[in-house]
Amino acid sequence: MSILRINLNADVGESFGAWQMGNDGALLRLIGSASIACGFHAGDPLVMRRTLRAALAAGVSVGAHPSFPDLQGFGRRPMQIPPAELEAMLIYQIAALAGLAQAEGGRLTHVKPHGALNNMACEDVGLANTVVAAIRSYDPALILLAPVMSQLLLAGETAGLRVVGEVFADRTYTETGSLTPRRQPGSILHSAGECVRHVLHMVEKGGVVSSGGRVIPTNFHSICVHGDSPATVAAATAIGEALLAAGCRLVSLPEVVA
Amino acid sequence: MSILRINLNADVGESFGAWQMGNDGALLRLIGSASIACGFHAGDPLVMRRTLRAALAAGVSVGAHPSFPDLQGFGRRPMQIPPAELEAMLIYQIAALAGLAQAEGGRLTHVKPHGALNNMACEDVGLANTVVAAIRSYDPALILLAPVMSQLLLAGETAGLRVVGEVFADRTYTETGSLTPRRQPGSILHSAGECVRHVLHMVEKGGVVSSGGRVIPTNFHSICVHGDSPATVAAATAIGEALLAAGCRLVSLPEVVA
Amino acid sequence: MSILRINLNADVGESFGAWQMGNDGALLRLIGSASIACGFHAGDPLVMRRTLRAALAAGVSVGAHPSFPDLQGFGRRPMQIPPAELEAMLIYQIAALAGLAQAEGGRLTHVKPHGALNNMACEDVGLANTVVAAIRSYDPALILLAPVMSQLLLAGETAGLRVVGEVFADRTYTETGSLTPRRQPGSILHSAGECVRHVLHMVEKGGVVSSGGRVIPTNFHSICVHGDSPATVAAATAIGEALLAAGCRLVSLPEVVA
Amino acid sequence: MSILRINLNADVGESFGAWQMGNDGALLRLIGSASIACGFHAGDPLVMRRTLRAALAAGVSVGAHPSFPDLQGFGRRPMQIPPAELEAMLIYQIAALAGLAQAEGGRLTHVKPHGALNNMACEDVGLANTVVAAIRSYDPALILLAPVMSQLLLAGETAGLRVVGEVFADRTYTETGSLTPRRQPGSILHSAGECVRHVLHMVEKGGVVSSGGRVIPTNFHSICVHGDSPATVAAATAIGEALLAAGCRLVSLPEVVA
Repeated sequence: MSILRINLNADVGESFGAWQMGNDGALLRLIGSASIACGFHAGDPLVMRRTLRAALAAGVSVGAHPSFPDLQGFGRRPMQIPPAELEAMLIYQIAALAGLAQAEGGRLTHVKPHGALNNMACEDVGLANTVVAAIRSYDPALILLAPVMSQLLLAGETAGLRVVGEVFADRTYTETGSLTPRRQPGSILHSAGECVRHVLHMVEKGGVVSSGGRVIPTNFHSICVHGDSPATVAAATAIGEALLAAGCRLVSLPEVVA
Repeated sequence: MSILRINLNADVGESFGAWQMGNDGALLRLIGSASIACGFHAGDPLVMRRTLRAALAAGVSVGAHPSFPDLQGFGRRPMQIPPAELEAMLIYQIAALAGLAQAEGGRLTHVKPHGALNNMACEDVGLANTVVAAIRSYDPALILLAPVMSQLLLAGETAGLRVVGEVFADRTYTETGSLTPRRQPGSILHSAGECVRHVLHMVEKGGVVSSGGRVIPTNFHSICVHGDSPATVAAATAIGEALLAAGCRLVSLPEVVA
Repeated sequence: MSILRINLNADVGESFGAWQMGNDGALLRLIGSASIACGFHAGDPLVMRRTLRAALAAGVSVGAHPSFPDLQGFGRRPMQIPPAELEAMLIYQIAALAGLAQAEGGRLTHVKPHGALNNMACEDVGLANTVVAAIRSYDPALILLAPVMSQLLLAGETAGLRVVGEVFADRTYTETGSLTPRRQPGSILHSAGECVRHVLHMVEKGGVVSSGGRVIPTNFHSICVHGDSPATVAAATAIGEALLAAGCRLVSLPEVVA
Repeated sequence: MSILRINLNADVGESFGAWQMGNDGALLRLIGSASIACGFHAGDPLVMRRTLRAALAAGVSVGAHPSFPDLQGFGRRPMQIPPAELEAMLIYQIAALAGLAQAEGGRLTHVKPHGALNNMACEDVGLANTVVAAIRSYDPALILLAPVMSQLLLAGETAGLRVVGEVFADRTYTETGSLTPRRQPGSILHSAGECVRHVLHMVEKGGVVSSGGRVIPTNFHSICVHGDSPATVAAATAIGEALLAAGCRLVSLPEVVA
């Protein structure tokens, strides 16, 4: 087993006003770190505060999950925003969440961009640099949580940020190590068993494992799980148990980089 | 002259996206402290950051000017929001601005609620306590800037916050010391000369002076001026010059409470 | 049986973007008329269009359910908006929904205000007149659906609109015929059986029946049911069946006023 | 003179809440047709209604100027929105404005997309078809106003809509007939004299005239002018006078297609 300390992360706090989403209560018992929506794609101030309170009570480390300004599209619509404006939007979101954390006696330790912003920053160096610049100008001690082998992760490392690479428990990878596009068959693993096998395989091999079985060695210390349905919560539970059984220690993001 | 150190404050950063408002450049050369919109009634993240940069460059102390969530109504529409939700909204706004200040190498030193929120919190003890709770839970070192003789000022004092009472340079007061309602004739002073006389009168007497000339002694250390038109900028300029000529020292809010 | 033709109405289309709400599919098989959110408290343009399509396919008459502009508060927060501005907001919402109905080959036949706007317009004559003015200036043929014995219903009648009074299947009434406030015990009927008895009682007596059994005679031709939980859908089903068994004909709002 | 009847059009109603933009009063005395913001990039319901009232009083034909949902970016940020969702958004905006026009006793006669939506639909056939589908499904009698030689104009013609091609009074064209990109020097004509010469040249030659003097023959019947500054209003005035002096009749869009 090449990886001993591993983090499970999930996106939480994605309710908004009268609308509920996700199973945060269940997820917070399973994960080590929570990325919390900041009001631009989901999460209003009260949802944010309550989510922070629950996460801190559960001993989970908390981070910001900032987005393009797109409530109706849940931050999934590609947008083009000038760098100075996007940087200010990101600081705004991270700081707003940090302030609510402070009011709850906690503090943010990471940032993970959401949705289309995350996808685009994984490919586009300029956008990746804008995300990194926002983090650095606000608080250079924050950890950047980003997909392995992405421009975003690379930009963070280059700029001297503490970074943690993540893989996805329920997404398959192509032969070149990129995520299989969602519209392709087999891009998503639906059963808990498949997710567990995929995760253990990657942990054992110390890298991404493609659908065809190819290993692309890469450093990862976090695994992203989901909680939007009972099935995904069950998968997350099974993954945590399997990792423990395999001898891994499940830790928070600050413990990963410590 | 019973008051020697006095602060001039103004609301700035009230542009939004493509829409411009106010003469911030001119105002920032005149005032000691700036209350900056936080995105809920005006001010987008980029406007906020640029306003902070300009204020800090001008040596002006900066504070948050949070509002009800009401961009279209410019925060002037009375709304009823449950206390827990409003408290979270206020922390969100204050912290977002604080984060952008931090990115610019500065820090917030005060909070002044905006528009309908401010008006209602001056009358309603419950609302005043919600504003005070938000400030205390986020950062109890922040100064609360509030109208003299208001429930808001009283709530801040009672809770142990540092408070500064303000009077308005261009608004007249009734015989009981409250602001003459805007819809009544004579509620607003339009000329620079009238504003100067009104301000000097209050500074000399150490209290609010009603339209009828009655003095209601009260502690104030800040004067609110406006910059939404060339006339109000001219009035602010004249007020500053008159106070200096009268032997006052014009200071920032942190200097007032020091 | 004093009432033979009766309408069942429900509020639908209250999802937004990625967030789901309600059981519209089930409700549309039970009701005669649907009030559809218009984007200000819920319902984005695509949700609106799909809801209209489903309602029209189900043979249900459709109406607008306009609100204060308050997505985060789901239109439940009291707001004070100047009459001219509110009137324009209401026309905007009604017309936007009407246009999507037109694109689907249908047409709106009624308007029912939502949430805090509805509650306030039931008490406040000025607000009631603003709602009525919006309907009249846009399309005076639209039916106003409003609670029995409300200022809103009265304002519509006085202005010559076609109006239909509604009672609530799951809300109890005080001795004076007003709704028991939600915060009081016994204000909400939770079981299908209670709702059925309440509705049959009111239909038989031809008026509102208070918790204490007092009958306040009043003209109503519509009963509001809910579909936000399996229990409320079950109650709505039971109410429809009981009314049919009692010899009522279940009709749409245009059939009520025909 | 190959063109005798010509339309001057401008975008108006781009204020929002407390923020003013443009010189609509001056423009409405000069133009034949006004494209009015629908609330997604500018224009709230009250601004929309007042702008309609002023335009109708001035005898100007009115149309919808729908946008991506992007108030902060003034509709200038490229966004990717799924076709079904964008189509519903466009119907929503057009219908909302149409309803306010109806309340003012008028009716919409054209649609002109705004900003990034317009730019992208001029290049992208799929997006152009979505715009055209929205217009056709709502009201196929509406005229589509679109830049000459654009995919948008072509899509409208192909689908059987009535279309009018427009040229820009203050923008230069490349040798292939496309607009000189804004970031290139010489893309914008700043003086009234230059605009007048450019317009007269295009009208005389019956086509677009490039910066280098090349004529690309194309059918246009509308000229877009601006009113965001005193200089652009002066240019619009001079253009109108020059066209009249050259023997043109200045007409509304419905008169162009009659």
